[in-house]
Amino acid sequence: MLLPREITTPALVVDTERLERNLHGMADSAAARGIRLRPHAKTHKTAEIARLQLGMGAAGLTVATISEAEKFAAAGVTDLFIAYPLWPSRQRLARLAALTERVSLRLGVESAEAAARLGRLSLLASPPEILIEIDSGHHRTGVPPGRAGEVALAVARAGLPLAGVFTFPGHSYTPGGRERAAAEEAAALAAASAALSVAGAAGGERSGGSTPTAALPADPPLTELRPGVYVFNDAQQAELGVCGDDQIALAAAATVVSRRSRDRFVLDSGSKVLGADAPPWSNGFGLLLGWPGARIVAISEHHATVVLPPGSAELVPGEIVAAIPNHVCAAVNLADELLVIRDGEVIDTWRVMARGANT
Amino acid sequence: MLLPREITTPALVVDTERLERNLHGMADSAAARGIRLRPHAKTHKTAEIARLQLGMGAAGLTVATISEAEKFAAAGVTDLFIAYPLWPSRQRLARLAALTERVSLRLGVESAEAAARLGRLSLLASPPEILIEIDSGHHRTGVPPGRAGEVALAVARAGLPLAGVFTFPGHSYTPGGRERAAAEEAAALAAASAALSVAGAAGGERSGGSTPTAALPADPPLTELRPGVYVFNDAQQAELGVCGDDQIALAAAATVVSRRSRDRFVLDSGSKVLGADAPPWSNGFGLLLGWPGARIVAISEHHATVVLPPGSAELVPGEIVAAIPNHVCAAVNLADELLVIRDGEVIDTWRVMARGANT
Repeated sequence: MLLPREITTPALVVDTERLERNLHGMADSAAARGIRLRPHAKTHKTAEIARLQLGMGAAGLTVATISEAEKFAAAGVTDLFIAYPLWPSRQRLARLAALTERVSLRLGVESAEAAARLGRLSLLASPPEILIEIDSGHHRTGVPPGRAGEVALAVARAGLPLAGVFTFPGHSYTPGGRERAAAEEAAALAAASAALSVAGAAGGERSGGSTPTAALPADPPLTELRPGVYVFNDAQQAELGVCGDDQIALAAAATVVSRRSRDRFVLDSGSKVLGADAPPWSNGFGLLLGWPGARIVAISEHHATVVLPPGSAELVPGEIVAAIPNHVCAAVNLADELLVIRDGEVIDTWRVMARGANT
Repeated sequence: MLLPREITTPALVVDTERLERNLHGMADSAAARGIRLRPHAKTHKTAEIARLQLGMGAAGLTVATISEAEKFAAAGVTDLFIAYPLWPSRQRLARLAALTERVSLRLGVESAEAAARLGRLSLLASPPEILIEIDSGHHRTGVPPGRAGEVALAVARAGLPLAGVFTFPGHSYTPGGRERAAAEEAAALAAASAALSVAGAAGGERSGGSTPTAALPADPPLTELRPGVYVFNDAQQAELGVCGDDQIALAAAATVVSRRSRDRFVLDSGSKVLGADAPPWSNGFGLLLGWPGARIVAISEHHATVVLPPGSAELVPGEIVAAIPNHVCAAVNLADELLVIRDGEVIDTWRVMARGANT
């Protein structure tokens, strides 16, 4: 990735050629397998990338919150899935009802109680379709596959259409763990789907897919994929072996502000730019593109401490480098805009228009 | 802290009575010791709290970046210290020059090379005053006390006024470590100040102070304190024993969205609201006010998994609770606004006007 010579750091830059390669790669892979792609837009939060994804055949977008749905609806997206077990308070029900007037809306549910409350939306002109969240091994939210039937009954009692089941195989974010997670994801969705049939419920959607599992074969295959991170990739994906360094499309342009020793330097891209995500298996807080073996070993709000491997050239104070965050979704959500670069020139600026849309 | 009954979650709320108690406590403590207070504004990033601090006698504010300085200058603050080893690029020099026309400006420096570059500001009508950054044991940036003299010579050659030395005792953020960090902070600043005298340099400011060390006696005493977090406090400060739960003035109002078992629940305040900071010694990703022993044991973008201690009452899906972030500076920087509450009512909304001001 060639950074612009004159750039105010820290700033997030997107290499448009790498981005387009990543977008085409996932779109083509899903199309070749006959699986619908519904990318998770929480990663990029921009109208421009949403349009690229839909232009390449995405069936719609996935979002995590009502306010993300509102932002993307305002940007013209007409098919949205809020893949989250929302608690249907009165206020949220009113916002969801307003959304159904503008978009085809799908909602996640994991409890009979939430399904019953969502029933107040059943008499709308275009009521939302429900997907039941399944726990496929990540153990965050969702019901075990065998309990999908009881939630389906509650959805039916609430008078809402059931589209199927969904899961997030978040346990794919562990070294060597993604094949097993993909297998468990496919098995859990199939078992939950079978449980729905037993309960007499329709709805055959089996929606899954994290970036680490999206390209792996699934048996039986999913009907829908919802990866998010693949548009940019990040240090976690590189460390998990999901992407190569040349598939990393977003970096924080950062200035070297301090030399501590011949192998230790400080950058101005701290946790308020890169985020502070650091899973226990990660080798630090991020990496440096073009500096093999370099790791961000410590981070604070405005400081990222880099250690270079033995034998490496030295960094020079004032030099601008490409720092790669561990978790790109967190980094993008800290920025107001992304600088779009091609061949080392800034060719556009994209607003992170759904930044902070958490409600 | 009494949360409003009707509130869209997740949202950051500030209890104004607790906030004012914290502000008065630090202002009174510094005044009683005859030490100037220059609070770090990166914690709150709001014009309203800046005005409260200055109204209670603060000598000025500390900031971390030029863009924070620009934001607070625009809000009317006239005395600012950028406590960071900025790399003086041509563009940054131009922005600093513009700032000197509006405010009394102080800058941090840790290298002779940066000092030389800053020399281009020496002929301005009101050139910035320089403070040399000292490493007092945190080993992030700054020079050892004994090398303050050589940087002072470079500052003199650059034609800039030297105000003194500063440090950030970040190693005070460890259990049982703050007394030692405070002692090392005082000793390092005194040694650096002595090194300046030997080099024939003027400038007697000895500026230090983190929230964990700010209230501890220092020998010799500092001349200036720059704590930031004390305005709100957070789970880290509670875990370090720096504050009691009743001194925590900021919380994320969060909804319980999922019950996993009788002691395990999921909130909608994930890392995009609380941040993902988790020092190795911390007991998770945050705590719940009013739920003693409850810990956030896992966090992802829109999920915070809470485990309650044995014998605790249960949480109920739909219930709204006060989640306390580990690191309040990170949480505030994720929010566009803070809801100001008193006796469970929202009485005002403060814009986080310097949110994302990282350059």
